[in-house]
Amino acid sequence: AVAFASAAFADLKPEEQIEYRQAGYSFMSWNMGKIKANLEGDFSSDQVSKAANAIAAIANSGMGALYGPGTDQNIGEVKTRVKPELFQNGEDVGQLAREFMDAADNLAEIAAEGEKSEVQAAFADLGSACKACHKKYRADN
Amino acid sequence: AVAFASAAFADLKPEEQIEYRQAGYSFMSWNMGKIKANLEGDFSSDQVSKAANAIAAIANSGMGALYGPGTDQNIGEVKTRVKPELFQNGEDVGQLAREFMDAADNLAEIAAEGEKSEVQAAFADLGSACKACHKKYRADN
Ligand code: HEC
Ligand code: HEC
Repeated sequence: AVAFASAAFADLKPEEQIEYRQAGYSFMSWNMGKIKANLEGDFSSDQVSKAANAIAAIANSGMGALYGPGTDQNIGEVKTRVKPELFQNGEDVGQLAREFMDAADNLAEIAAEGEKSEVQAAFADLGSACKACHKKYRADN
Repeated sequence: AVAFASAAFADLKPEEQIEYRQAGYSFMSWNMGKIKANLEGDFSSDQVSKAANAIAAIANSGMGALYGPGTDQNIGEVKTRVKPELFQNGEDVGQLAREFMDAADNLAEIAAEGEKSEVQAAFADLGSACKACHKKYRADN
Protein backbone atom coordinates (compact mmCIF):
# COMPACT_ATOMS: atom_id res chain seq x y z
CA ALA A 1 0.00 0.00 0.00
CA VAL A 2 1.38 3.38 -1.04
CA ALA A 3 0.03 6.67 0.32
CA PHE A 4 -0.74 9.56 -2.02
CA ALA A 5 2.54 11.23 -2.95
CA SER A 6 2.28 14.55 -1.18
CA ALA A 7 6.01 15.27 -1.16
CA ALA A 8 7.52 16.75 -4.30
CA PHE A 9 7.88 14.18 -7.07
CA ALA A 10 11.67 14.32 -6.93
CA ASP A 11 11.47 13.25 -3.30
CA LEU A 12 10.00 9.78 -3.89
CA LYS A 13 11.76 7.32 -1.65
CA PRO A 14 13.34 4.24 -3.29
CA GLU A 15 10.77 1.97 -1.62
CA GLU A 16 7.93 4.09 -3.03
CA GLN A 17 9.46 3.86 -6.50
CA ILE A 18 9.61 0.06 -6.20
CA GLU A 19 5.97 -0.13 -5.06
CA TYR A 20 4.76 2.16 -7.82
CA ARG A 21 6.57 0.26 -10.57
CA GLN A 22 5.22 -3.05 -9.25
CA ALA A 23 1.73 -1.50 -9.19
CA GLY A 24 2.09 -0.46 -12.83
CA TYR A 25 3.24 -3.91 -13.96
CA SER A 26 0.60 -5.62 -11.86
CA PHE A 27 -2.21 -3.50 -13.29
CA MET A 28 -0.95 -4.15 -16.82
CA SER A 29 -0.97 -7.87 -16.14
CA TRP A 30 -4.61 -7.71 -14.98
CA ASN A 31 -5.43 -6.11 -18.32
CA MET A 32 -3.37 -8.68 -20.25
CA GLY A 33 -5.36 -11.38 -18.44
CA LYS A 34 -8.65 -9.79 -19.52
CA ILE A 35 -7.54 -9.66 -23.15
CA LYS A 36 -6.43 -13.29 -22.97
CA ALA A 37 -9.80 -14.32 -21.53
CA ASN A 38 -11.58 -12.44 -24.33
CA LEU A 39 -9.47 -14.22 -26.95
CA GLU A 40 -10.22 -17.60 -25.40
CA GLY A 41 -13.93 -17.00 -24.82
CA ASP A 42 -16.55 -14.42 -25.71
CA PHE A 43 -14.85 -11.48 -27.41
CA SER A 44 -15.99 -8.05 -26.22
CA SER A 45 -14.16 -5.52 -28.38
CA ASP A 46 -15.10 -2.78 -25.91
CA GLN A 47 -13.50 -4.57 -22.97
CA VAL A 48 -10.43 -5.49 -25.00
CA SER A 49 -9.97 -1.95 -26.26
CA LYS A 50 -10.24 -0.47 -22.78
CA ALA A 51 -7.75 -3.00 -21.44
CA ALA A 52 -5.32 -2.29 -24.30
CA ASN A 53 -5.66 1.47 -23.69
CA ALA A 54 -4.79 1.01 -20.02
CA ILE A 55 -1.70 -1.01 -20.89
CA ALA A 56 -0.53 1.49 -23.53
CA ALA A 57 -1.06 4.50 -21.26
CA ILE A 58 0.85 2.84 -18.43
CA ALA A 59 3.63 1.81 -20.84
CA ASN A 60 3.95 5.43 -21.98
CA SER A 61 3.83 6.98 -18.51
CA GLY A 62 7.57 7.14 -17.94
CA MET A 63 8.11 4.18 -15.62
CA GLY A 64 11.86 4.52 -16.16
CA ALA A 65 11.75 7.22 -13.47
CA LEU A 66 10.88 4.47 -11.00
CA TYR A 67 14.33 2.86 -11.34
CA GLY A 68 16.20 5.51 -9.38
CA PRO A 69 19.23 5.09 -7.10
CA GLY A 70 18.64 2.64 -4.26
CA THR A 71 15.86 0.76 -6.05
CA ASP A 72 18.17 -2.11 -7.02
CA GLN A 73 17.66 -4.05 -3.79
CA ASN A 74 15.09 -4.99 -1.15
CA ILE A 75 14.31 -2.22 1.33
CA GLY A 76 12.92 -3.62 4.57
CA GLU A 77 9.62 -5.30 3.78
CA VAL A 78 9.59 -3.93 0.24
CA LYS A 79 11.07 -6.66 -1.93
CA THR A 80 12.16 -6.18 -5.52
CA ARG A 81 12.78 -8.76 -8.22
CA VAL A 82 14.80 -6.45 -10.45
CA LYS A 83 18.20 -7.86 -11.46
CA PRO A 84 21.29 -5.67 -11.01
CA GLU A 85 21.94 -6.05 -14.76
CA LEU A 86 19.06 -3.66 -15.50
CA PHE A 87 21.05 -0.79 -14.01
CA GLN A 88 24.18 -1.71 -15.95
CA ASN A 89 22.75 -2.12 -19.45
CA GLY A 90 20.92 1.15 -20.04
CA GLU A 91 21.09 0.94 -23.81
CA ASP A 92 19.66 -2.57 -24.02
CA VAL A 93 16.95 -1.78 -21.47
CA GLY A 94 16.02 1.36 -23.42
CA GLN A 95 15.72 -0.71 -26.60
CA LEU A 96 13.49 -3.31 -24.91
CA ALA A 97 11.39 -0.53 -23.37
CA ARG A 98 10.88 1.11 -26.78
CA GLU A 99 9.88 -2.22 -28.35
CA PHE A 100 7.45 -2.72 -25.46
CA MET A 101 5.89 0.75 -25.91
CA ASP A 102 5.58 0.21 -29.67
CA ALA A 103 3.90 -3.16 -29.13
CA ALA A 104 1.53 -1.64 -26.56
CA ASP A 105 0.63 1.29 -28.84
CA ASN A 106 0.10 -1.15 -31.70
CA LEU A 107 -2.23 -3.38 -29.66
CA ALA A 108 -4.27 -0.34 -28.58
CA GLU A 109 -4.67 0.77 -32.21
CA ILE A 110 -5.56 -2.72 -33.43
CA ALA A 111 -7.97 -3.26 -30.52
CA ALA A 112 -9.83 -0.07 -31.43
CA GLU A 113 -10.66 -1.70 -34.77
CA GLY A 114 -12.12 -4.74 -33.02
CA GLU A 115 -10.91 -7.62 -35.26
CA LYS A 116 -10.30 -10.64 -33.06
CA SER A 117 -7.68 -12.31 -35.26
CA GLU A 118 -5.65 -9.10 -35.53
CA VAL A 119 -5.89 -8.58 -31.78
CA GLN A 120 -4.58 -12.11 -31.29
CA ALA A 121 -1.39 -11.36 -33.21
CA ALA A 122 -0.80 -7.95 -31.63
CA PHE A 123 -1.43 -9.42 -28.18
CA ALA A 124 1.14 -12.16 -28.79
CA ASP A 125 3.70 -9.54 -29.87
CA LEU A 126 3.11 -7.53 -26.72
CA GLY A 127 3.41 -10.63 -24.56
CA SER A 128 6.77 -11.33 -26.18
CA ALA A 129 7.92 -7.80 -25.38
CA CYS A 130 7.03 -8.28 -21.70
CA LYS A 131 8.84 -11.62 -21.60
CA ALA A 132 11.93 -10.31 -23.38
CA CYS A 133 12.53 -7.91 -20.53
CA HIS A 134 11.67 -10.35 -17.76
CA LYS A 135 14.02 -12.96 -19.15
CA LYS A 136 17.00 -10.67 -18.79
CA TYR A 137 16.10 -8.28 -16.01
CA ARG A 138 13.58 -9.84 -13.62
CA ALA A 139 14.55 -12.53 -11.13
CA ASP A 140 12.35 -15.61 -10.91
CA ASN A 141 11.51 -15.07 -7.25
CA ALA B 1 3.13 -9.10 -5.84
CA VAL B 2 0.62 -10.62 -8.25
CA ALA B 3 1.58 -13.21 -10.85
CA PHE B 4 0.40 -12.95 -14.45
CA ALA B 5 -3.23 -14.05 -14.58
CA SER B 6 -3.07 -17.31 -16.48
CA ALA B 7 -6.40 -18.65 -15.23
CA ALA B 8 -9.53 -17.49 -17.02
CA PHE B 9 -10.50 -13.96 -16.07
CA ALA B 10 -13.66 -15.10 -14.33
CA ASP B 11 -11.53 -17.23 -12.03
CA LEU B 12 -9.68 -14.38 -10.32
CA LYS B 13 -9.48 -15.06 -6.61
CA PRO B 14 -10.81 -12.39 -4.23
CA GLU B 15 -7.29 -11.68 -2.97
CA GLU B 16 -6.08 -11.15 -6.55
CA GLN B 17 -8.95 -8.74 -7.17
CA ILE B 18 -7.97 -6.75 -4.06
CA GLU B 19 -4.32 -6.61 -5.12
CA TYR B 20 -5.16 -5.54 -8.67
CA ARG B 21 -7.51 -2.77 -7.55
CA GLN B 22 -4.92 -1.47 -5.09
CA ALA B 23 -2.34 -1.57 -7.89
CA GLY B 24 -4.61 0.51 -10.11
CA TYR B 25 -5.25 3.13 -7.43
CA SER B 26 -1.60 3.20 -6.44
CA PHE B 27 -0.43 3.75 -10.01
CA MET B 28 -3.00 6.52 -10.47
CA SER B 29 -1.72 8.21 -7.34
CA TRP B 30 1.85 8.14 -8.66
CA ASN B 31 0.60 9.96 -11.73
CA MET B 32 -1.43 12.44 -9.64
CA GLY B 33 1.78 13.15 -7.72
CA LYS B 34 3.65 13.85 -10.95
CA ILE B 35 0.99 16.29 -12.13
CA LYS B 36 1.03 18.02 -8.73
CA ALA B 37 4.82 18.37 -8.90
CA ASN B 38 4.53 19.84 -12.41
CA LEU B 39 1.96 22.38 -11.21
CA GLU B 40 4.17 23.38 -8.29
CA GLY B 41 7.44 23.51 -10.23
CA ASP B 42 8.59 23.33 -13.84
CA PHE B 43 5.60 22.46 -16.03
CA SER B 44 6.27 19.79 -18.68
CA SER B 45 3.08 19.51 -20.70
CA ASP B 46 4.33 16.23 -22.16
CA GLN B 47 4.84 14.63 -18.75
CA VAL B 48 1.50 15.97 -17.49
CA SER B 49 -0.36 14.71 -20.53
CA LYS B 50 1.14 11.24 -20.28
CA ALA B 51 0.30 11.08 -16.57
CA ALA B 52 -3.28 12.24 -17.23
CA ASN B 53 -3.66 9.64 -19.99
CA ALA B 54 -2.55 6.88 -17.63
CA ILE B 55 -5.08 7.97 -14.99
CA ALA B 56 -7.91 8.22 -17.52
CA ALA B 57 -7.17 4.84 -19.08
CA ILE B 58 -7.03 3.17 -15.67
CA ALA B 59 -10.25 4.92 -14.64
CA ASN B 60 -11.96 3.58 -17.76
CA SER B 61 -10.63 0.02 -17.48
CA GLY B 62 -13.56 -1.43 -15.58
CA MET B 63 -12.18 -1.60 -12.04
CA GLY B 64 -15.69 -2.34 -10.77
CA ALA B 65 -15.02 -5.96 -11.72
CA LEU B 66 -12.42 -6.01 -8.94
CA TYR B 67 -15.08 -5.67 -6.23
CA GLY B 68 -16.42 -9.21 -6.52
CA PRO B 69 -17.79 -11.45 -3.77
CA GLY B 70 -15.34 -12.03 -0.93
CA THR B 71 -13.35 -8.85 -1.57
CA ASP B 72 -15.03 -6.99 1.29
CA GLN B 73 -12.59 -8.18 3.93
CA ASN B 74 -8.94 -9.00 4.59
CA ILE B 75 -7.82 -12.35 3.19
CA GLY B 76 -4.77 -13.65 5.02
CA GLU B 77 -1.93 -11.22 4.42
CA VAL B 78 -3.90 -9.32 1.81
CA LYS B 79 -5.50 -6.40 3.64
CA THR B 80 -8.23 -4.22 2.20
CA ARG B 81 -9.38 -0.78 3.30
CA VAL B 82 -12.73 -0.95 1.52
CA LYS B 83 -15.71 -0.19 3.76
CA PRO B 84 -18.67 -2.62 3.74
CA GLU B 85 -20.88 0.32 2.69
CA LEU B 86 -19.40 0.20 -0.82
CA PHE B 87 -21.11 -3.14 -1.43
CA GLN B 88 -24.45 -1.90 -0.10
CA ASN B 89 -24.78 1.39 -2.00
CA GLY B 90 -24.34 0.35 -5.62
CA GLU B 91 -26.18 3.33 -7.03
CA ASP B 92 -24.20 5.91 -5.09
CA VAL B 93 -20.89 4.18 -5.88
CA GLY B 94 -21.83 4.06 -9.57
CA GLN B 95 -22.56 7.79 -9.52
CA LEU B 96 -19.22 8.59 -7.84
CA ALA B 97 -17.42 6.31 -10.27
CA ARG B 98 -19.00 8.07 -13.26
CA GLU B 99 -18.05 11.49 -11.88
CA PHE B 100 -14.52 10.19 -11.39
CA MET B 101 -14.29 8.86 -14.96
CA ASP B 102 -15.66 12.13 -16.34
CA ALA B 103 -13.14 14.15 -14.32
CA ALA B 104 -10.31 11.87 -15.47
CA ASP B 105 -11.35 12.12 -19.14
CA ASN B 106 -11.64 15.89 -18.78
CA LEU B 107 -8.15 16.22 -17.28
CA ALA B 108 -6.69 14.11 -20.10
CA GLU B 109 -8.33 16.34 -22.72
CA ILE B 110 -7.28 19.55 -21.01
CA ALA B 111 -3.75 18.26 -20.45
CA ALA B 112 -3.39 17.53 -24.16
CA GLU B 113 -3.86 21.26 -24.79
CA GLY B 114 -1.03 22.09 -22.39
CA GLU B 115 -2.39 25.20 -20.58
CA LYS B 116 -1.09 25.15 -17.01
CA SER B 117 -3.94 27.17 -15.47
CA GLU B 118 -6.60 24.96 -17.07
CA VAL B 119 -4.75 21.85 -15.96
CA GLN B 120 -4.73 23.23 -12.41
CA ALA B 121 -8.54 23.45 -12.33
CA ALA B 122 -9.15 20.07 -13.96
CA PHE B 123 -6.61 18.46 -11.63
CA ALA B 124 -8.38 19.90 -8.58
CA ASP B 125 -11.71 18.54 -9.86
CA LEU B 126 -10.24 15.08 -10.30
CA GLY B 127 -8.68 15.19 -6.83
CA SER B 128 -12.12 16.01 -5.43
CA ALA B 129 -13.60 13.02 -7.23
CA CYS B 130 -10.98 10.71 -5.68
CA LYS B 131 -11.63 12.16 -2.22
CA ALA B 132 -15.42 11.96 -2.54
CA CYS B 133 -15.18 8.20 -2.85
CA HIS B 134 -12.53 7.74 -0.17
CA LYS B 135 -14.52 9.78 2.34
CA LYS B 136 -17.44 7.39 2.13
CA TYR B 137 -15.96 4.08 1.09
CA ARG B 138 -12.31 3.79 2.14
CA ALA B 139 -11.30 3.25 5.74
CA ASP B 140 -8.54 5.44 7.17
CA ASN B 141 -6.27 2.54 7.96
C1 HEC C 1 -15.41 4.85 -6.68
C2 HEC C 1 -14.49 4.85 -5.55
C3 HEC C 1 -13.08 5.39 -5.67
C4 HEC C 1 -12.55 6.32 -6.50
C5 HEC C 1 -13.27 7.14 -7.55
C6 HEC C 1 -11.14 6.41 -6.19
N1 HEC C 1 -10.83 5.55 -5.19
FE1 HEC C 1 -8.98 5.30 -4.34
N2 HEC C 1 -9.70 3.73 -3.25
C7 HEC C 1 -11.03 3.37 -3.16
C8 HEC C 1 -11.16 2.23 -2.28
C9 HEC C 1 -12.45 1.50 -1.91
C10 HEC C 1 -9.86 1.91 -1.85
C11 HEC C 1 -9.45 0.76 -0.93
C12 HEC C 1 -9.10 -0.45 -1.84
C13 HEC C 1 -8.70 -1.66 -1.02
O1 HEC C 1 -7.90 -1.52 -0.06
O2 HEC C 1 -9.13 -2.78 -1.36
C14 HEC C 1 -8.97 2.88 -2.48
C15 HEC C 1 -7.58 2.88 -2.31
C16 HEC C 1 -6.73 3.85 -2.81
C17 HEC C 1 -5.31 3.92 -2.54
C18 HEC C 1 -4.48 2.92 -1.72
C19 HEC C 1 -4.04 1.79 -2.67
C20 HEC C 1 -3.19 0.72 -1.99
O3 HEC C 1 -2.04 0.52 -2.44
O4 HEC C 1 -3.68 0.09 -1.02
C21 HEC C 1 -4.83 5.03 -3.20
C22 HEC C 1 -3.39 5.53 -3.22
C23 HEC C 1 -5.96 5.63 -3.89
N3 HEC C 1 -7.10 4.89 -3.63
C24 HEC C 1 -5.88 6.74 -4.71
C25 HEC C 1 -6.92 7.19 -5.55
C26 HEC C 1 -6.79 8.23 -6.53
C27 HEC C 1 -5.51 9.04 -6.77
C28 HEC C 1 -8.00 8.36 -7.15
C29 HEC C 1 -8.43 9.28 -8.25
C30 HEC C 1 -7.50 9.60 -9.33
C31 HEC C 1 -8.90 7.40 -6.53
N4 HEC C 1 -8.20 6.70 -5.57
C32 HEC C 1 -10.23 7.22 -6.88
C33 HEC C 1 -12.09 3.97 -3.81
C34 HEC C 1 -11.99 4.91 -4.82
C1 HEC D 1 11.75 -2.95 -19.75
C2 HEC D 1 11.50 -4.04 -18.82
C3 HEC D 1 10.12 -4.62 -18.59
C4 HEC D 1 9.04 -4.66 -19.44
C5 HEC D 1 8.94 -4.15 -20.87
C6 HEC D 1 7.97 -5.31 -18.71
N1 HEC D 1 8.40 -5.66 -17.46
FE1 HEC D 1 7.29 -6.60 -16.02
N2 HEC D 1 8.82 -6.35 -14.70
C7 HEC D 1 10.08 -5.86 -15.01
C8 HEC D 1 10.89 -5.83 -13.81
C9 HEC D 1 12.33 -5.37 -13.71
C10 HEC D 1 10.07 -6.30 -12.77
C11 HEC D 1 10.44 -6.44 -11.28
C12 HEC D 1 10.02 -5.13 -10.59
C13 HEC D 1 10.36 -5.13 -9.12
O1 HEC D 1 10.12 -6.15 -8.44
O2 HEC D 1 10.86 -4.09 -8.63
C14 HEC D 1 8.78 -6.61 -13.36
C15 HEC D 1 7.68 -7.10 -12.64
C16 HEC D 1 6.48 -7.51 -13.20
C17 HEC D 1 5.38 -8.12 -12.46
C18 HEC D 1 5.32 -8.37 -10.96
C19 HEC D 1 4.78 -7.08 -10.30
C20 HEC D 1 4.66 -7.18 -8.79
O3 HEC D 1 3.52 -7.01 -8.28
O4 HEC D 1 5.69 -7.43 -8.10
C21 HEC D 1 4.40 -8.38 -13.37
C22 HEC D 1 3.04 -9.02 -13.08
C23 HEC D 1 4.88 -7.93 -14.67
N3 HEC D 1 6.15 -7.42 -14.52
C24 HEC D 1 4.14 -7.98 -15.84
C25 HEC D 1 4.52 -7.33 -17.03
C26 HEC D 1 3.68 -7.23 -18.20
C27 HEC D 1 2.29 -7.84 -18.31
C28 HEC D 1 4.38 -6.52 -19.14
C29 HEC D 1 3.99 -6.11 -20.52
C30 HEC D 1 2.63 -5.69 -20.80
C31 HEC D 1 5.67 -6.20 -18.55
N4 HEC D 1 5.71 -6.70 -17.27
C32 HEC D 1 6.70 -5.51 -19.21
C33 HEC D 1 10.51 -5.46 -16.25
C34 HEC D 1 9.71 -5.27 -17.36
